[in-house]
Amino acid sequence: MPLTGQNYIASELSAEGSDVFFSVDPRSKASGSLPFHNATRAEVDRAVAAAVAAFGEIRHYPSSKIAGFLDEVAEQIEALGDDLLHTADSETGLGLPRLTGERARTTGQIRAFANLLREGSYLRPIINTEGPGQPAIKQMQFPLGPVAVFAASNFPFAFAVAGGDTASALAAGCPVAVKAHPGHPATSELFAVALNAAVAAQGFPAGTFSLLQGNGINVGQWLVENDGIEAVGFTGSLRGGRAIYDAASRRPRPIPVYAEMGSVNPVVITQAALAARAEEIAEGLVGSVTMGTGQFCTNPGLILLEDSGASRDFISAVTQKMEAAPAGVLLNEAIAAGLQSAVSGTATRPQIEVLTGGEAISESEYFCYRNTVMQTTAAAIRADDRLQVEHFGPVTLFVLCQDMDDLGAAVDALEGNLTSTVHAEETELDSIGDLLHQLREKAGRVIWNGFPTGVAVVHAMQHGGPYPATTAPGTTSVGMNAIYRFMRPIAFQNVPEALLPAALQDANPLGILRLVDDVYTDGAI
Amino acid sequence: MPLTGQNYIASELSAEGSDVFFSVDPRSKASGSLPFHNATRAEVDRAVAAAVAAFGEIRHYPSSKIAGFLDEVAEQIEALGDDLLHTADSETGLGLPRLTGERARTTGQIRAFANLLREGSYLRPIINTEGPGQPAIKQMQFPLGPVAVFAASNFPFAFAVAGGDTASALAAGCPVAVKAHPGHPATSELFAVALNAAVAAQGFPAGTFSLLQGNGINVGQWLVENDGIEAVGFTGSLRGGRAIYDAASRRPRPIPVYAEMGSVNPVVITQAALAARAEEIAEGLVGSVTMGTGQFCTNPGLILLEDSGASRDFISAVTQKMEAAPAGVLLNEAIAAGLQSAVSGTATRPQIEVLTGGEAISESEYFCYRNTVMQTTAAAIRADDRLQVEHFGPVTLFVLCQDMDDLGAAVDALEGNLTSTVHAEETELDSIGDLLHQLREKAGRVIWNGFPTGVAVVHAMQHGGPYPATTAPGTTSVGMNAIYRFMRPIAFQNVPEALLPAALQDANPLGILRLVDDVYTDGAI
Repeated sequence: MPLTGQNYIASELSAEGSDVFFSVDPRSKASGSLPFHNATRAEVDRAVAAAVAAFGEIRHYPSSKIAGFLDEVAEQIEALGDDLLHTADSETGLGLPRLTGERARTTGQIRAFANLLREGSYLRPIINTEGPGQPAIKQMQFPLGPVAVFAASNFPFAFAVAGGDTASALAAGCPVAVKAHPGHPATSELFAVALNAAVAAQGFPAGTFSLLQGNGINVGQWLVENDGIEAVGFTGSLRGGRAIYDAASRRPRPIPVYAEMGSVNPVVITQAALAARAEEIAEGLVGSVTMGTGQFCTNPGLILLEDSGASRDFISAVTQKMEAAPAGVLLNEAIAAGLQSAVSGTATRPQIEVLTGGEAISESEYFCYRNTVMQTTAAAIRADDRLQVEHFGPVTLFVLCQDMDDLGAAVDALEGNLTSTVHAEETELDSIGDLLHQLREKAGRVIWNGFPTGVAVVHAMQHGGPYPATTAPGTTSVGMNAIYRFMRPIAFQNVPEALLPAALQDANPLGILRLVDDVYTDGAI
Repeated sequence: MPLTGQNYIASELSAEGSDVFFSVDPRSKASGSLPFHNATRAEVDRAVAAAVAAFGEIRHYPSSKIAGFLDEVAEQIEALGDDLLHTADSETGLGLPRLTGERARTTGQIRAFANLLREGSYLRPIINTEGPGQPAIKQMQFPLGPVAVFAASNFPFAFAVAGGDTASALAAGCPVAVKAHPGHPATSELFAVALNAAVAAQGFPAGTFSLLQGNGINVGQWLVENDGIEAVGFTGSLRGGRAIYDAASRRPRPIPVYAEMGSVNPVVITQAALAARAEEIAEGLVGSVTMGTGQFCTNPGLILLEDSGASRDFISAVTQKMEAAPAGVLLNEAIAAGLQSAVSGTATRPQIEVLTGGEAISESEYFCYRNTVMQTTAAAIRADDRLQVEHFGPVTLFVLCQDMDDLGAAVDALEGNLTSTVHAEETELDSIGDLLHQLREKAGRVIWNGFPTGVAVVHAMQHGGPYPATTAPGTTSVGMNAIYRFMRPIAFQNVPEALLPAALQDANPLGILRLVDDVYTDGAI
């Protein structure tokens, strides 16, 4: 498919600016020849104005119509064919098997939102019927309005132009303006082609979707500061997410920012677990740390265990496996430079020992970094916040603790994370409960005898957590509940049936679950 | 009951500071003799540290135990007897009938949360059972941690020390540190006595509740900036709420702020409605504007209607009724000064006509302001944001529109509000839909043929709205869903039954509604 390097502003190609950048193949460090045009302020403003206009129409659409549009988006993505996989592979180096899986995940989650909309109960209707001295009050969820989405680099499909943020915002009934990630501009354009085709095929207003290219901070700042934007979805670094959050908070009219940022994903391994299955855990851990060249927000980056011969043996085994594992390709130069800077910063702290790696593979023709294992103590973790910095790559840090109390104190000192994990044995259930509670307070998801990479797209998933993992601990960016980030409840008091949405009408024509006078029912009133 | 004028820091009286202030009777402008001690920074820090420690215990409590505590709080408030009513009346001038009703509302909403907890489904359990290649994921809502509550002046019971924010935070399982409103420090202390008694009677940790007195901005700033605080509930002015929001957003670790601030609560009245029941609407409107001396966040402050003879007659009738209505007592000097400043600011804008009032009653021995009616045009509303300023008192502003298109354009120019209202006739249902949609986008609650004052404490209530009505449009500060402001979801992956909360155990021992593999059920797995 011929690419243009232009922005997609409400279905129209646009390249008003002269500031351009190029796609880079991380395997060869070679730049592509097609210039991608940084969006101008006028283009950003036009995209938002079109989204505001589109919202005026979309907010009247029934859930079923939006569901049809989502299905069309999934089909149009599939219609891009293997061109999408090859383009993304050349921009990210993630490899065809991974990208094939990620494509299925991406279309799968879009279709899952379509199914959620068709089922209908996601509208959360709550009704209190009229009573003596009480009016009838009926509420449900409505879309917030135009949403700005910031695409991530490490999931060029599932957390990017048509990824979870975009899918959940569109499902909510919100138009979306996406700031594409500069790491994969060609891939981004392909998704824009698919989304535009879906907009046309389903007769949605042109402003339903816009794609804004940009390799600096301007485009994102203009987008967030535009008064027409009502909410922001972001996946990326702590620094980037915090900058967006700060910009949105400083607006004359602040808006919610749902930023999924850094995480070190602590893993606790008990001595009993080591005794029972050290080899299996080592194997799993190395697989989880090196998967996707370690470029996952759920990468297990901090492994806490009691100091013992078994633990030392375990760390040696992991270190050997990390040395033996092939060095992967990093996504781009910025990721490589950031990883170098983060690991170097950590390695120079007191009480840090680099067991293997700790440097880029400089002779390589691609962006890469040696698989890295470091080691420190619980006392150091407690004393030095800097040790909780995310190393976004194939890196993990062991924390040796004097005993379980020392380990517990280290857990108490942890910042917020997306996940926390315990490896323990069934025989320890009585003694491990307090630690599990502690780990719970530090994360959005608690894993037992597993690894944090691999985020199932299911209703019960919680992909979020206390700051700095996210800016909104009550929300998730994966799973069906991601939709509520872009909705708000509105209540109707004594409003006639004819003016109410179907979900709130007495007859319950959608047949959905509602909370009526404090009782859940899918019946009529 | 003898008052001390001290702070209540985790059940202990404390008056370390020398900076004091006094209660003022708004009916006589006379100061009381008991000095109330502004909390010091050390006292604030101690309250938060105690709350953090208390959270370590409370987070393990089952819902039923917290429900018992809430019932105890309600009983202890009732045990304060009429002393509470008289104290509050002398500090607010709100009168015994209103305060008697507000007390019932306050204990009623505390008990409603207790019932919500006993029913149990508020935990929102979501379960995806294990499948091929999929782990078991089970999530539910957990408390966020220590909450700072800023009490309002205009509801000394229902939105103050033991008001809706405190009740919902405690119900969520969060310890609370309240910054009392300086307008009613004695009333605040009585509530602290009741809460402390409940803490003692139910054996809750001392840090479950603290009361911090303060008549400046320091105490609140110290509280919000303390790293132990995880969320903030605020009810008050736009300026105050925004300052708190900004402080929380600038923290190294930002936290959510749920601020319920200003609102002008637009009301649209059609010509058909005027033709059918002008007198009834005028009567209701004046009652709503002057109720509680107009000191409600839902006070109808902006009335939009087409320019016509009937409209002019209606405005005259309202103006006459406003003149005839007695001038009420304003809560305190700050409210009186703020009202004077807001109305004076509005009155000097172009295209504003003051039909009656517009000045303080200076010869009065109490804080008061003449019932005030102003008039302007839709064009002025569109051109001048300043006209959407809240006048917190018995004041309303009529907006004459050339026709319904002109009216619609004015509605489009409105900022966010807590409520919006339409008065129309059944014969207009076909034509009024678009306007209702427009008004919906501007508010959290849409009222048909009623008045916005009177916020029913029911599950379906939405007391919130787009900024500047609140800082968090997806949340409510009244009704059962207020609890979710202080909770967050946590998911458990493959965690053994023995370590899961009852709500997530396969047998569903609580018998509550759960979403299991995408189907709602109260059965076992």
